[in-house]
Amino acid sequence: MTPDEFRRAGHAVVDWIADYWATVGQRPVTSQDPPGAVAARLPAGPPEHGEPVEAVLADLDALVVPGLTHWQHPGFFGYFPANTSGPSVLGDLVSSGLGVQGMLWATGPACTELETVMLDWLAELLDLPKRFRSGSGGGGVIQDSASSATLVATLVALHRAGGGRWREVGVDRRHRAYASTQGHSSIEKAARIAGLGADGVRPVEVDPETQAMSPAALRAAIEADVAAGVVPAIVVATVGTTSTTAVDPLPEIGAICAEYGIFLHVDAAYAGAAAVCPELRFGHAGLEYADSYCFDPHKWLLTGFDCDAFWVADSAELIEALSVLPEYLRNAATESGAVIDYRDWQVPLGRRFRALKLWFVLRWYGVAGLRSHIRSGVALAARFAERVGGDDRFALVGAHPYSLVCFRLRADDEVNAELLARVNATGRVHLTHTRVDGRYTLRLAVGSPQTTEAHVDEAWSLLGDAADALLPR
Amino acid sequence: MTPDEFRRAGHAVVDWIADYWATVGQRPVTSQDPPGAVAARLPAGPPEHGEPVEAVLADLDALVVPGLTHWQHPGFFGYFPANTSGPSVLGDLVSSGLGVQGMLWATGPACTELETVMLDWLAELLDLPKRFRSGSGGGGVIQDSASSATLVATLVALHRAGGGRWREVGVDRRHRAYASTQGHSSIEKAARIAGLGADGVRPVEVDPETQAMSPAALRAAIEADVAAGVVPAIVVATVGTTSTTAVDPLPEIGAICAEYGIFLHVDAAYAGAAAVCPELRFGHAGLEYADSYCFDPHKWLLTGFDCDAFWVADSAELIEALSVLPEYLRNAATESGAVIDYRDWQVPLGRRFRALKLWFVLRWYGVAGLRSHIRSGVALAARFAERVGGDDRFALVGAHPYSLVCFRLRADDEVNAELLARVNATGRVHLTHTRVDGRYTLRLAVGSPQTTEAHVDEAWSLLGDAADALLPR
Repeated sequence: MTPDEFRRAGHAVVDWIADYWATVGQRPVTSQDPPGAVAARLPAGPPEHGEPVEAVLADLDALVVPGLTHWQHPGFFGYFPANTSGPSVLGDLVSSGLGVQGMLWATGPACTELETVMLDWLAELLDLPKRFRSGSGGGGVIQDSASSATLVATLVALHRAGGGRWREVGVDRRHRAYASTQGHSSIEKAARIAGLGADGVRPVEVDPETQAMSPAALRAAIEADVAAGVVPAIVVATVGTTSTTAVDPLPEIGAICAEYGIFLHVDAAYAGAAAVCPELRFGHAGLEYADSYCFDPHKWLLTGFDCDAFWVADSAELIEALSVLPEYLRNAATESGAVIDYRDWQVPLGRRFRALKLWFVLRWYGVAGLRSHIRSGVALAARFAERVGGDDRFALVGAHPYSLVCFRLRADDEVNAELLARVNATGRVHLTHTRVDGRYTLRLAVGSPQTTEAHVDEAWSLLGDAADALLPR
Repeated sequence: MTPDEFRRAGHAVVDWIADYWATVGQRPVTSQDPPGAVAARLPAGPPEHGEPVEAVLADLDALVVPGLTHWQHPGFFGYFPANTSGPSVLGDLVSSGLGVQGMLWATGPACTELETVMLDWLAELLDLPKRFRSGSGGGGVIQDSASSATLVATLVALHRAGGGRWREVGVDRRHRAYASTQGHSSIEKAARIAGLGADGVRPVEVDPETQAMSPAALRAAIEADVAAGVVPAIVVATVGTTSTTAVDPLPEIGAICAEYGIFLHVDAAYAGAAAVCPELRFGHAGLEYADSYCFDPHKWLLTGFDCDAFWVADSAELIEALSVLPEYLRNAATESGAVIDYRDWQVPLGRRFRALKLWFVLRWYGVAGLRSHIRSGVALAARFAERVGGDDRFALVGAHPYSLVCFRLRADDEVNAELLARVNATGRVHLTHTRVDGRYTLRLAVGSPQTTEAHVDEAWSLLGDAADALLPR
């Protein structure tokens, strides 16, 4: 494809996206197609000869779009949103066009340095402790997801706990990871990948009121384990759990980790973004204890997936844990010690130029624009919670400090599951569920920049209608 | 950013990329800036208020582009190329605009099904064994990189070798991974991540002529290890090693793996793409023995990074090894068993809609266009090798079955390192180096769709000039 062919086709694709965004709110949020419908519409093999872009775009409309879950729909309230934005898409487009592979500083000096600076900008934006900034012994890096951040943190912790022998002899299965029972499933997966197995994770009880990790339970678990010859290697604390956005108390957890010399990773995948607003930084109290921290700009900071921002307080230790240096990657810049090679900060070798989308987002919105986006989400969630709280058939489940509201009908789990199924079947909204204290609970998470009061009110109206049918007043 | 603002800015960015591609060949391939130059040009923090896209694009030109290594430059011959193309960028742009997160079938039915079909298309295109196709017990998935594919293969192998106990109790450090001394560094990294440590990798000697794994050495290593109580868990064979594109003999290696019940992963990260041409499928002989296989469309198949295509012969075993199912991800489609949830096929939870760029590439080029691209690379490499072979100051190192040529001056390592430094300092080309049998060796890898005979001839001419200065005739 020549540059001029690309120019013409590129304008068409940009227009396609602009039209999609302008109309996405009119589509059903999720596909009504059964499994296999999309695959059945596609040919069995690739075409022998090339086709024009117009043919592919026509099939995009006819074959692919009807089979989508529309994550950017203003009525998408499921999971945590993975919102994107115009500037993010533009930054990513530049990244695709440059096609830079930034595994080493030498293979992409600007790719590396813009990333370092963007992570410092984000650290300032969230008012993270100084120790995470570059030039202070720490530093940040973009991971694909919080799952990978948790895995990397686990590996560094095992390296530290292994006293330098982990790289050579492998994992010591006496090492243990601690997380609350509400910690993300990626903690269990990281422990499995790292060779600890399910037995290597110690679930710590939560306070039933707050769903946050109980420091007393953590201490008790550590003491019992140490007495039994088990070696605590890492505690993963969560700021904003996936189920209910509970906030583990970092001041107490951090003090315990410091006392026992345990690596502390803080997973703020979703809620970390809230810290762009000074009044929403409460979850980060005690963060100065953390050895590593992450949050996902791709969840609630207008940056397209994938973009997890991960910081460590001791970058030398991270590099020591993960570096491998074959001859074909040796180069003068690396050997000078004056540069960062981000391949040593992650699992894969290669990496895209993801800092560009952060740069575009941070500059387009500015600090003020990002704060406004977060505050809008919090206000919409509060508005929805007020509706729920004002209807005595419903119960709010826990607090809603960010933009997630958990709630249920005062009825059996089956009725709540049916409620969820009915509102989702309208195609106007998409909510998901969890279990809190074993009980089926609905979740409504606000995050899309397109979501307004009207969309939240519509969600409430649909829920009310379904409740009328299921549970007559 | 409204859809109309996005439309205007998007056209500008598309034009920027078209102009960049039209002129990239006139830029120095690598930046002349010292470490820190890009960072020093950037403000210390994010702007308080938003800025227009034009301001960011102006800074892209002024601050970022001068600090780039231009991977899409027609004179980029380093590492293995990570080539992209117009249709790939367009497919990725659609993916960014849709902002779909395809962790589950339910969160992106079309994202999941298009990926399954594209991996089947690729399997057909490369004529991979039937066992890797969906519907035959196997199936394909997009990983970010071959590093991650090797890690996933290692985890599945450890699950199998652990007899089902690995998920629960963790890794058994008696398990061992085997790869040739020329295997990629990601094999060592995967073993380290998986908790085996460096001791868990047994490097197998290569045939000094071909640099390919010696089956006799593999058998000897396995027999000695088994006798010593070590348990062989996985062999990673390489089709097209990073140093020299050596091809490990799969028929012999596969038979040994079958005899001992060892998991066989085949890493064809770079060279696998060659198999789109029937006459270049020799490296895949014996692939029917493999339990898993991968190659990178992002290296030599016109698809932008990241896009590694990874297949397993037994998808149920893969899912068993990697699945974790928290309540908040439970859904009817998953429980029906009728769908694929690709989160269980990879390390992270979240995933982008990367199948779109493959779809755009496969349809724009068609089978014929892709074959033509591969053949062009092979022919250009052969042309360059002919020049090298015709100059008795130079020696070709090994064969050049694909598009990589290894060579050196008949002189000391220092002279060869200086030769590389001088040609790279011209800014017209970028080559990298390796060591073969301990000797410093230059590598020229062709891959960019913009590279023509003139660029390869220029590389040769620059090498000749530098050789004249270093080693007068």
